[in-house]
Amino acid sequence: MQAPHSDLSNGDLPRIAADILARLREHRPRVHCITNSVAQNFTANMLLAAGASPSMTIAREEIVAFVESSDALLVNLGTFDAERREAAGLAIAAAQAKKLPWVLDPVLVDRAPPRAAFARELVAKGPAVMRLNRAEFSALAGAEATDETVVRYARDRKLVVALSGEIDLAADGTRMAALANGHEWMARVTAMGCAGSALVAACLAVESDAWRASVAALLMLGVAGEIAAVNARGPGSFAAAIIDALHAVDGETLIARARVT
Amino acid sequence: MQAPHSDLSNGDLPRIAADILARLREHRPRVHCITNSVAQNFTANMLLAAGASPSMTIAREEIVAFVESSDALLVNLGTFDAERREAAGLAIAAAQAKKLPWVLDPVLVDRAPPRAAFARELVAKGPAVMRLNRAEFSALAGAEATDETVVRYARDRKLVVALSGEIDLAADGTRMAALANGHEWMARVTAMGCAGSALVAACLAVESDAWRASVAALLMLGVAGEIAAVNARGPGSFAAAIIDALHAVDGETLIARARVT
Amino acid sequence: MQAPHSDLSNGDLPRIAADILARLREHRPRVHCITNSVAQNFTANMLLAAGASPSMTIAREEIVAFVESSDALLVNLGTFDAERREAAGLAIAAAQAKKLPWVLDPVLVDRAPPRAAFARELVAKGPAVMRLNRAEFSALAGAEATDETVVRYARDRKLVVALSGEIDLAADGTRMAALANGHEWMARVTAMGCAGSALVAACLAVESDAWRASVAALLMLGVAGEIAAVNARGPGSFAAAIIDALHAVDGETLIARARVT
Repeated sequence: MQAPHSDLSNGDLPRIAADILARLREHRPRVHCITNSVAQNFTANMLLAAGASPSMTIAREEIVAFVESSDALLVNLGTFDAERREAAGLAIAAAQAKKLPWVLDPVLVDRAPPRAAFARELVAKGPAVMRLNRAEFSALAGAEATDETVVRYARDRKLVVALSGEIDLAADGTRMAALANGHEWMARVTAMGCAGSALVAACLAVESDAWRASVAALLMLGVAGEIAAVNARGPGSFAAAIIDALHAVDGETLIARARVT
Repeated sequence: MQAPHSDLSNGDLPRIAADILARLREHRPRVHCITNSVAQNFTANMLLAAGASPSMTIAREEIVAFVESSDALLVNLGTFDAERREAAGLAIAAAQAKKLPWVLDPVLVDRAPPRAAFARELVAKGPAVMRLNRAEFSALAGAEATDETVVRYARDRKLVVALSGEIDLAADGTRMAALANGHEWMARVTAMGCAGSALVAACLAVESDAWRASVAALLMLGVAGEIAAVNARGPGSFAAAIIDALHAVDGETLIARARVT
Repeated sequence: MQAPHSDLSNGDLPRIAADILARLREHRPRVHCITNSVAQNFTANMLLAAGASPSMTIAREEIVAFVESSDALLVNLGTFDAERREAAGLAIAAAQAKKLPWVLDPVLVDRAPPRAAFARELVAKGPAVMRLNRAEFSALAGAEATDETVVRYARDRKLVVALSGEIDLAADGTRMAALANGHEWMARVTAMGCAGSALVAACLAVESDAWRASVAALLMLGVAGEIAAVNARGPGSFAAAIIDALHAVDGETLIARARVT
């Protein structure tokens, strides 16, 4: 295996993330999200807080028009019904035709084999990034998530793996970063991972290097989580506070708080 | 064009809005909402805060029974799928049969031509009010939203146009009011416009003059937004605070804070 | 009618609820929820706050796999569409095959006869608990909710009735408890009852006595509501604060605050 960390100094990443955040706020990219109904409202508010503009329809009659007028696409598999599967196919085809980047979030593929099988079909269609947690990675990759298995999966599938956990990892075939920002309450708010995937899509809309975009999104989310925890009494107020924090965070704060290696 | 502001002193509107708010709280009208899944939870909580009683089913087997036992109807086109289109047809027919007022919210018709076409079909069915933003108005009316185009559209379609923006406008064919209340964070919370449309429906349930009902709803929302901003740290806590503020607002506060011309 | 309160000292219930809460936190049971899109996000966050792990898919292709790997099931009838009806049938069959307990929440059956008819079909399939409010009980039972009608309904249908209201009641055919905890804002937050039903399912996952599980869930919810009201300015901040309070509440607090007779 090629050594990770080889062709970029990860010390530059916080500054790069700050620059991506500035572009997000300037360009206000449109992000179309196929996501589950549990996650829709929180995801939309997190995108708005970051500076992006969300849309969420899955209707076959119009999803192509929405994707074609967007800057990036999220395909989240939570709630895996026939309508969303069809919507995913149409949306991905539209994104490919327009060369728009898209993110796959294979939610809970560890719980149901048909969902995992569908996720593997979508991996083959070339998402720029797959964001998921360790249990989901294991179900798809057939191996525990380690630095080595994550980098190998990313290289073999030619995508970026953005792995959420106590330590987040972002890897393409040659580069890897580990992010230690975040707060334990992030695991106690439903759709936090889904919102993270939407932020990756938003960053992809303004940054063509998918690995850098992924690191930036994970960093924004982790730093916002740390700031939110100070103002929250528990996971309920935390869910509102992380939206506030993401809305307020600036590049300087990202750089000052980043724990990226 | 007939001059707006002609047949009512708009100075009376805050007092009228206060009276409509009192009736809302007394009668607790039932408002059935066909709305998108992004907006459902926030819309339901905003209606409850205002004093109304929401229901949200779109199932063809029962939507007629729900509409028939409601006092007003909202048809919101966000998420424009076959099931919701059918539900809209059944619900509007039931509302017409019972002479219930209904509100159309043509969400994001500027993004997809099929949705705009469907919105035009629904305009022809006679909503009492259409609430929308400037981009949506332009897509439907084929002209920029100005005092003149809004009044003309309202007159030609025999409905009230309730236009949200930095300054809100409410116009029927002969009357127009401009409302300067509100806060910039309202544009950073998803479904804020959808909730505004639901409040219009709630006011229509207790006020037969659709223009006055629209002004009252826009004023309640704008004043609640101003109060909420004082207690919020950003758009996340603002979304909760505007529910608190709408729940607490009274007629005196509406009158004291109204900036209606 | 057999006297309620006969075979257990209800004075033991707070201690029993504290014990069930400890087991919830230790075992973190998986609760699969078929629930309406208005309620999904709040329900998921309430389950996470209590210590449970929610899933929410209704897709026919995978719901059986999700239920089979869960510890309890919730079937909530808000939004009563063909897809959810089919999902309910598959999920209940899977729960029965695995001997998993399930809860029925017949939301708003007082508003639409077809929904009430479907609820009656589901009652015949043997839920461990039915959680509902007084209007919904009257629609199903054909009688006002009184101590006597509730106990009789529970005995005849061989289930526990968990009735929400200013005073909550939990009854099986021989036992009844009344709970006076709670706060008026609980009725102003959409999906509060739905979340209560999900908590009953979570408690059933760790307590085989369905009546005790129901009392524990209603007590946790009522106590969390009381605590939340202290930190809230209205129903919007209350919805976040009750998640915080449920996350923080411990057995000692349950015992100290319980008003159970």
